[in-house]
Amino acid sequence: MATTPGNLFIVSAPSGAGKSSLIKALLDNHNNENHPIQVSVSHTTRAPRPGEIDGVHYHFVSKEEFEALIKEEAFFEWAQAFDNYYGTAKKNITETLQHGIDVFLDIEWQGARQVKALLPETNTIFIAPPSKEELRKRLSGRQQDSEEVINKRMASAVSEISHYHEFDYIIVNDDFETALSELESIVCSHRLRKAKQLIRLKGLFEGLLDD
Amino acid sequence: MATTPGNLFIVSAPSGAGKSSLIKALLDNHNNENHPIQVSVSHTTRAPRPGEIDGVHYHFVSKEEFEALIKEEAFFEWAQAFDNYYGTAKKNITETLQHGIDVFLDIEWQGARQVKALLPETNTIFIAPPSKEELRKRLSGRQQDSEEVINKRMASAVSEISHYHEFDYIIVNDDFETALSELESIVCSHRLRKAKQLIRLKGLFEGLLDD
Repeated sequence: MATTPGNLFIVSAPSGAGKSSLIKALLDNHNNENHPIQVSVSHTTRAPRPGEIDGVHYHFVSKEEFEALIKEEAFFEWAQAFDNYYGTAKKNITETLQHGIDVFLDIEWQGARQVKALLPETNTIFIAPPSKEELRKRLSGRQQDSEEVINKRMASAVSEISHYHEFDYIIVNDDFETALSELESIVCSHRLRKAKQLIRLKGLFEGLLDD
Repeated sequence: MATTPGNLFIVSAPSGAGKSSLIKALLDNHNNENHPIQVSVSHTTRAPRPGEIDGVHYHFVSKEEFEALIKEEAFFEWAQAFDNYYGTAKKNITETLQHGIDVFLDIEWQGARQVKALLPETNTIFIAPPSKEELRKRLSGRQQDSEEVINKRMASAVSEISHYHEFDYIIVNDDFETALSELESIVCSHRLRKAKQLIRLKGLFEGLLDD
């Protein structure tokens, strides 16, 4: 795919790093007309949960439909988890980027690796917790769970964290506002990159260089 | 040079784009202990002007000293203008970057090209005026100058602008606060890049991944 006016960002993190809250705050604060941002809506074969809307939270499709899309190579990345498929369709993302809209993908390291291989311009961001103690606190704090359940969550988080060095950027979410401002700076800086600005500022430079 | 904890930024702009004010504001606002920033002090053979301090505004050296430094390949870049030499010495910059301090170079496109060739990790930023009319206004506004003098300044500015596409980032200085915030986002985002964070966060990830 040629350079698009929009930027594609992947944000990955272990459970407990605060990724969803950061993405939500970014979209709430900074989704203005000049620089629109969208979070990509994934496809899934799992059943909608109460309150989930088709096309908003997920594109809900049957197993047969999903497998047909796999055969058509319609996905940038897909994975199977607990008998359900999850995938990121190429078409919507490409079109959104071509309209100058930045797209956020909220996926795990395997998906990040697959998308980056297909779209090397993708900017990948890893959100890390500030310490092991704080991570355990955040993973324990949600409910009154058994030590065993918490240990399983910790093991899963540590496994995700072990891929931190595969990402282009690393943000430590210690103070939420600082982490949000860092995430914003990454998004803003990519809009200022030459490849994007040459598209946006074509008229300005023609005017400046006109005799 | 291997990856250093500090980042090197080059900022170039035509006269009238507001580059010096932007760099000054960046240093005034954001030069804290966690993320120190310095502007590199150039060498020159021209005589100090009233109020200029050796080692602060420039390193003032004789023509013979400068030519000896050229022979020693002590400069990342140097140029001659109006019988005077100007140059950016390698040693100070390399040491400053190794101490984790970000360094700003305020040089023109020729120098930017030379430094980038020697240090491909350098991040180059071009500051553009928002329109030809505004540029002429800013270049006229300084004093009561003749049309001829202003036209010369305009020609020189347009010549510098014609190299805008050689830079990694382009900022349009229309609203000063917006341009400053954009410059800050570029600096911040480079501090979050993996290569830098792997140095800074080594201990954090050892702790997170420790069994």
